[in-house]
Amino acid sequence: MISVTRKSHFNAAHRLNNPKWSDKKNEEFFGLCNNENYHGHNYELDVTVSGEIDEESGYLVDMKELSDIIESEIESRFDHKNLNLDTEEFRELNPTAENIAIVIWNILREKIPKKFQLSIKLYETPRNFVEYSG
Amino acid sequence: MISVTRKSHFNAAHRLNNPKWSDKKNEEFFGLCNNENYHGHNYELDVTVSGEIDEESGYLVDMKELSDIIESEIESRFDHKNLNLDTEEFRELNPTAENIAIVIWNILREKIPKKFQLSIKLYETPRNFVEYSG
Amino acid sequence: MISVTRKSHFNAAHRLNNPKWSDKKNEEFFGLCNNENYHGHNYELDVTVSGEIDEESGYLVDMKELSDIIESEIESRFDHKNLNLDTEEFRELNPTAENIAIVIWNILREKIPKKFQLSIKLYETPRNFVEYSG
Amino acid sequence: MISVTRKSHFNAAHRLNNPKWSDKKNEEFFGLCNNENYHGHNYELDVTVSGEIDEESGYLVDMKELSDIIESEIESRFDHKNLNLDTEEFRELNPTAENIAIVIWNILREKIPKKFQLSIKLYETPRNFVEYSG
Amino acid sequence: MISVTRKSHFNAAHRLNNPKWSDKKNEEFFGLCNNENYHGHNYELDVTVSGEIDEESGYLVDMKELSDIIESEIESRFDHKNLNLDTEEFRELNPTAENIAIVIWNILREKIPKKFQLSIKLYETPRNFVEYSG
Amino acid sequence: MISVTRKSHFNAAHRLNNPKWSDKKNEEFFGLCNNENYHGHNYELDVTVSGEIDEESGYLVDMKELSDIIESEIESRFDHKNLNLDTEEFRELNPTAENIAIVIWNILREKIPKKFQLSIKLYETPRNFVEYSG
Repeated sequence: MISVTRKSHFNAAHRLNNPKWSDKKNEEFFGLCNNENYHGHNYELDVTVSGEIDEESGYLVDMKELSDIIESEIESRFDHKNLNLDTEEFRELNPTAENIAIVIWNILREKIPKKFQLSIKLYETPRNFVEYSG
Repeated sequence: MISVTRKSHFNAAHRLNNPKWSDKKNEEFFGLCNNENYHGHNYELDVTVSGEIDEESGYLVDMKELSDIIESEIESRFDHKNLNLDTEEFRELNPTAENIAIVIWNILREKIPKKFQLSIKLYETPRNFVEYSG
Repeated sequence: MISVTRKSHFNAAHRLNNPKWSDKKNEEFFGLCNNENYHGHNYELDVTVSGEIDEESGYLVDMKELSDIIESEIESRFDHKNLNLDTEEFRELNPTAENIAIVIWNILREKIPKKFQLSIKLYETPRNFVEYSG
Repeated sequence: MISVTRKSHFNAAHRLNNPKWSDKKNEEFFGLCNNENYHGHNYELDVTVSGEIDEESGYLVDMKELSDIIESEIESRFDHKNLNLDTEEFRELNPTAENIAIVIWNILREKIPKKFQLSIKLYETPRNFVEYSG
Repeated sequence: MISVTRKSHFNAAHRLNNPKWSDKKNEEFFGLCNNENYHGHNYELDVTVSGEIDEESGYLVDMKELSDIIESEIESRFDHKNLNLDTEEFRELNPTAENIAIVIWNILREKIPKKFQLSIKLYETPRNFVEYSG
Repeated sequence: MISVTRKSHFNAAHRLNNPKWSDKKNEEFFGLCNNENYHGHNYELDVTVSGEIDEESGYLVDMKELSDIIESEIESRFDHKNLNLDTEEFRELNPTAENIAIVIWNILREKIPKKFQLSIKLYETPRNFVEYSG
């Protein structure tokens, strides 16, 4: 059992808001993050794949393939986007760092072979991050 | 002549757009950064003040005072804001990293005693930054 | 099961010394860290809370609340202090990085709801750190 | 149960190549990493030791001793070396980051007391790393 | 006058050696860096361009264009190469960090418009770097 | 003209205090930093040497020699020390980051050949630093 991790990143705008709550409750609960005009972050993403090494190649996974999956499935989907307005995933779902991590994990889980475990670490800022392993 | 630098940060949404250009030209020139729904960044800001040390205190400036100025003048103005919509400074001015750095420098220049030189370093992402010294 | 981590920091002096040992043994065992006049560190602290996401808010915990707990319970207690002289916790206990991590974990464990797991990562320098999960 | 981690580093050249494969297959599979003239990396290594704290000293392990083991067993062996040509370990074994991590773990496992668990984190670049715990 | 900086990177093998010196002198002077089988580094490169902001776009330079120049002129030339064997630039010239920085500056100077000043910062390791401005 | 920089570090305790001021004034002015029992920092030091490259070696200076000077002159003097109590330099002089940087520069200036320019960057914490060039 060994793990490899690839770092990537995307820049996006978002707003925290629960459409089932009143505007007043959203503002009280989410504070500045509820700004109706959005704010944004440089999201830094660590994708970790774990499993058994392939003895012939000495690779767990081909980092180039992993990197390509992250680029086509995550970066191209979320980079330079407004998460609330521009993405299917967060039209209904509140784009907290926790929910973004879960969404990313679910997308990648479909693309990473089942024999591997998958973990996600998502930095919303250099000072706070979320981890999710399914 | 000695310099002290204080790091701070704010998270904001923005969109690059020149209102005097056609939509087509803006889209071609600014690419993804022109997204009409905005994207965002964690801006990391280094403020550098230079001058002569005060021999009595051993300080160039009181870092707490410098930190308070940055918080009240820059962080509270730009943090968790949409630069294009929520701020006076960028209602007309295109919020490129270059223009944000110049705006920040001009704001701080008013608040930092004239006997000191002032320089700004603004990271738009961990991979690119702007420097401005007036 | 998801985890969120918040980074914080405090600057403190300390000295490694076991009062039950002779001065000679303390000096031989702890070397430079035994300096009777103290030395110090910028302690960087990662606090990780794990549990089930709150579906309504999309938060695991409110980062602002977590941040406030860390500030009032840890930073205000240890920042700009001499751990050996100024704190109850290390009057008898040797302030190794390991013991500081355990003390911090015990303090925070009282303040973080029991339904959450708690982990601590404490950097004594950028080159060595301790992890503790109870 | 507590963990301490020590960071260290070594700079080395390597080439990814499976001698049982044809040159063509190696080139196709490993791409630029197969360059017959080698390329290189600054490997950054985190060594994590876990176990029970020694109540008398307040240490899990003496960081100086751990640091000396890493220097004598890993840095002196691999630093400023060509992994394929200059080291016994990779004369037959393909020096992928995964295999280097496993080799380092096996070397250190012999030198770290059995009562401790051992984990390795090896950065091949600032953007990708491998973790191995035996 | 404003500056923008773009970070990039390449991984390469090299060996420090002055072909006009005896093997003995090279070994004594360059020590481990003279290893005839090469060692390597992750070179991290900051390219800084300075000049007058373009008032219409709000850019000093288009970061995408700058990034493309760095990729086509520097990364594709040096990444995953043996500097001594695979590159014209260092067939005769000793690939010290200083000389690599000067070579990179000279290459980029040809490609960056003359109205801009150009500076280079080249990290050979996270602990040492070279700066060159022509 | 080219510059090379070497990073190093030392951990020390200190207290900010002007012995010519009253206790009350010191406490008001320096706040937490005036704690009579000291606090401490991991000081991270960048030493930059600038001048003309030696064409024969391709070095500006031998990094190993520079590193040895920093270790013998700065690290061994200040590491794991109480700056106020254990060092000649700060027995009378208030050990602000500014004064520490000036003292380090003056010590190194004596040891670095006169043909080179010398600059110092001293991080007191990861969030603030001082620069001094004489």
